[in-house]
Amino acid sequence: MDRLRGFRDIFPEEAEPRKKIFTVSERISERFDFSKIEFPSIEFLELYRLKSGEELVGQTFSFTDKGGREVALTPEATPSIVRMITSRKDLQMPSKWYSFQRYWRYEEPQSGRQREFYQYNADIFGLNSKEADAEVIGLACTILDEVGLDGKYSMKINSRELMESILTSAGLTDLERGYSVIDKLKKSGTEQTERELRKIGMSEEGARKLLSLIENEYDPDNFPFNSFTDYGKDPDILNRLVETGKLVKKYTRSSVVIDLSIVRGLTYYTGVVFEAYDLSGTFRSILGGGRYDRLASLMSQMDIPAIGFGMGDVILELLLKQNGDLVSEASEKSISICYADSALYDYSLSVANRFRQLGYRTSISLSGKSLSSQLRSASKWGFRYAGIIGEIELESASVTVKNMKTGQQKAIEIDSLENLQDKI
Amino acid sequence: MDRLRGFRDIFPEEAEPRKKIFTVSERISERFDFSKIEFPSIEFLELYRLKSGEELVGQTFSFTDKGGREVALTPEATPSIVRMITSRKDLQMPSKWYSFQRYWRYEEPQSGRQREFYQYNADIFGLNSKEADAEVIGLACTILDEVGLDGKYSMKINSRELMESILTSAGLTDLERGYSVIDKLKKSGTEQTERELRKIGMSEEGARKLLSLIENEYDPDNFPFNSFTDYGKDPDILNRLVETGKLVKKYTRSSVVIDLSIVRGLTYYTGVVFEAYDLSGTFRSILGGGRYDRLASLMSQMDIPAIGFGMGDVILELLLKQNGDLVSEASEKSISICYADSALYDYSLSVANRFRQLGYRTSISLSGKSLSSQLRSASKWGFRYAGIIGEIELESASVTVKNMKTGQQKAIEIDSLENLQDKI
Repeated sequence: MDRLRGFRDIFPEEAEPRKKIFTVSERISERFDFSKIEFPSIEFLELYRLKSGEELVGQTFSFTDKGGREVALTPEATPSIVRMITSRKDLQMPSKWYSFQRYWRYEEPQSGRQREFYQYNADIFGLNSKEADAEVIGLACTILDEVGLDGKYSMKINSRELMESILTSAGLTDLERGYSVIDKLKKSGTEQTERELRKIGMSEEGARKLLSLIENEYDPDNFPFNSFTDYGKDPDILNRLVETGKLVKKYTRSSVVIDLSIVRGLTYYTGVVFEAYDLSGTFRSILGGGRYDRLASLMSQMDIPAIGFGMGDVILELLLKQNGDLVSEASEKSISICYADSALYDYSLSVANRFRQLGYRTSISLSGKSLSSQLRSASKWGFRYAGIIGEIELESASVTVKNMKTGQQKAIEIDSLENLQDKI
Repeated sequence: MDRLRGFRDIFPEEAEPRKKIFTVSERISERFDFSKIEFPSIEFLELYRLKSGEELVGQTFSFTDKGGREVALTPEATPSIVRMITSRKDLQMPSKWYSFQRYWRYEEPQSGRQREFYQYNADIFGLNSKEADAEVIGLACTILDEVGLDGKYSMKINSRELMESILTSAGLTDLERGYSVIDKLKKSGTEQTERELRKIGMSEEGARKLLSLIENEYDPDNFPFNSFTDYGKDPDILNRLVETGKLVKKYTRSSVVIDLSIVRGLTYYTGVVFEAYDLSGTFRSILGGGRYDRLASLMSQMDIPAIGFGMGDVILELLLKQNGDLVSEASEKSISICYADSALYDYSLSVANRFRQLGYRTSISLSGKSLSSQLRSASKWGFRYAGIIGEIELESASVTVKNMKTGQQKAIEIDSLENLQDKI
C-alpha cells in the first residue's frame, strides 16, 4: 500500500528537527503579541473563485462532498482569514493573528514543491501605517533570524503604489501585464525583459530607464531619491516605502533592501510587498507577503486594511538542511534507565518517572534486555546520561548516574536528582 | 461567505488556551522518549477498506482526485502509521512514535463531535510486553494529569484475550456480537444487556454470571482472582492484565481500574484495551486504545506487534473548559511599550525589540494613539507591565516600567532589563 504522489511521510529523523520551524514561529509570534487562530481545512470552493482567480482554483483539491456541496481543501490562508475577520463585528482592531496549518495544491510535484505543505501566516488587520508594515516584515525577519538564517537571507521590499505610479509615468497602461513582465526579470534577464516591455507598449528609452531603476537594490538608509525625480507625482508614496525599510532594519541585522523587481503575482496587493531570498540563490523565495487593503470589502461590506505574509515549510526546510541547521542534537536533559534484572523493573520505573517529572527525555527498556545491551543502546541513541540500577541502588534508594560524555559515574539518592548537570 | 457545517473557526480567545493541549502532549511525549512523525492528510481510499470496514469508509470524506484516484481525507491515524512502519525494513525496533494531526469524518455534527478535529496518537511498535502496555497507558495518564485533569478521570483497562477466554467459557461463539452487546452495557443497563446476551445464545445463568463480572470495577492491587476461577484456562492472560494495571498505577495518582465492560468497537485489537472517562460522567471517553499485534501482517508481510492510543481535541477541550482549566492567563512576562509622541517611535521600537529578545510578549502601538489611550489598552489587555517612554527616557537611554498589578513604577536603563520581576 503506497502513499500518494506529492505527499510525504515524515519519519522521526526528519520530524524532530522540523519542530524547530514550528516552535520558533510560535514563540516569536507570541513575543510580537500575535494571537493564534485556526480555521477549517475545507472551505466552499466559491471562497477561492471570489479572490484567487481561475489559476489557483484550477490547482485546488476540490470535490463535491456527500451533501452535494462544491468544496476545496484550503490552497492558501488569506481567503479563510479574511472570511473570519469579516464574520464578526465585535473584534477589537487592530487584530494581530497568526496560524500554522496544512495546505494542498494539485500541482506537479518537484524539488521544493509538494502537493501538501504547512504554511505559517501572520497578519495585522485594521491598521494602515508604516509602523504596521514594518512590524509584520520585522516579525518575518525575526523568525528567519531565530530559526538559524541570521545573515543568510535578504528581505526585499517594494510598494505596489510606487510601481503603479512609476509604470504609469513611463507610459504603461496595462499594469497587470507590466507586473507580470517585471516579476520574471530575475529569470529572463535584462534583454528579454526589455523586449517584453517594448512589446507591451513602452518606448526603448522608457524601458531602459525603467530597467535601470528596477535592476538595482537600494539600502533604505541611503536611498537615491534623485534617480526617482521623474517618477511618482506623490512623494509620500516613495517616502512611505523608504521609511518602512528603515524601520524594518531596526528588527534585524540581516540584509533589508528596496528592490523594485519584487511585485508578486497576486493582483490584490495595494501597498508594500516583500519577499525573502536566501543569499546563496539556490531556492525560490522563502516567504512573501504584502498589504491588501481592499480584500475585506470585496468579500463583505466591511472596510478593513490588512497586511500579512505566508511562509511554507518546504523551502525553509531545504534551506535549513543546506545550512546544517536542522541537525537534531542529543538533549543535555536525557537519560536512559538501565537495570540489572527484571525484578528491579518496578523500582527502575519509579526512577524513570521521577526523571520525567524533572523534564528529562527518559527511556527505560520495556523488553528485559541484558544490562550491557541496555547500556549499548543508551550510547547508540545519544543519551546524555545512563541511570544504572542494581540491588545496591534499590536498597539505598539511589541510582548510579553515568555521564556518557565523560564516562564518569556517581551514585545519587533519588531525592537529590535536581540539577544533575552540576553533580556529574 | 460561510464556513461549512461541522467545521470550526477558532478565534484567539479559544485558540490561545487550546495550545495547552498541543504543548503538553508534545512535551510529555518527548519526556517518554517518543519521536514525532507526520503523514499525509490524504491517502488512497483502499487503505481504509483493508482495515476499517465499511462503516468507517462510509464516514470518510472520500473523493476522486483530478488524476482519477479514489482518495480519502484521513479519518484516523492507525492505517497511515502502520503503512509507514511497514514501508521501511531499516527501522530500529522498538519504535516509539507520536503524531498530532487533523482528521475528518463525514458524520452528523453534535456536541463533542465535529467533522474536522485534531487527534494526538502514540504507539510502540515491535514489542509485546506488559511493560510496553503500561508505558503507553502511563503516557496517556501523564498527559491527562499534566493538562489539568489530575484526579478527575478514571483509566479503565481490559484485555481482549481475557474477554475471548471468558466469553468462550460462557458458551458464546459469536465473539463480535458479544463484544458489541457488552460495549453498550453502560448505555443499555443490566436488564437490557441480559436480554441481549440471551438473544445471542447464552443461558440465563451464564448471562447473569457474566454480568456480575463485568458490572464491577477492580483495583489491580486488590484483584478478586477467586471470582474468575471458572473462566479462562490460561491464568497468564488474567495475570498479564492485572500486572499491567499495577504498573500503570506507578505512572499516576489518578484512578486506574480493571473494567471488563471496556471492549472497544474496532475488531483488530488483540490484547490490552483501555479508555479514559471523566469522573463527572458528562462526556464520551476522552481517549482510547489498545494492543493490535496482527494489523501489520494484514497490510504487509511483516509481523510487528503494536500498542497505541488516540486522543481527540474536542472532548478534551470541552472537559477542560468545564473544569475551568482552559482560562488564558496574563503572562508574567508581558509588556506594552507606550510612547508620549510619535517622534519617540524609533527609540520605543528598539526598547520593544529588546524586550522581545528577553522573551517578553511585547506590544507597541502602531497607530500613534495618545499616551493615555495606550496605557488604557495595556491595562485592558492584561499586560503585566507598561514601558513608558518620553523625552527623559530617550535622553537617559532608559524606560519607565510600570507594574500594572501594584501600580508602582521605576526608571530602568535599557542595558539592565534582565530579571525585571526582581526590580519592580
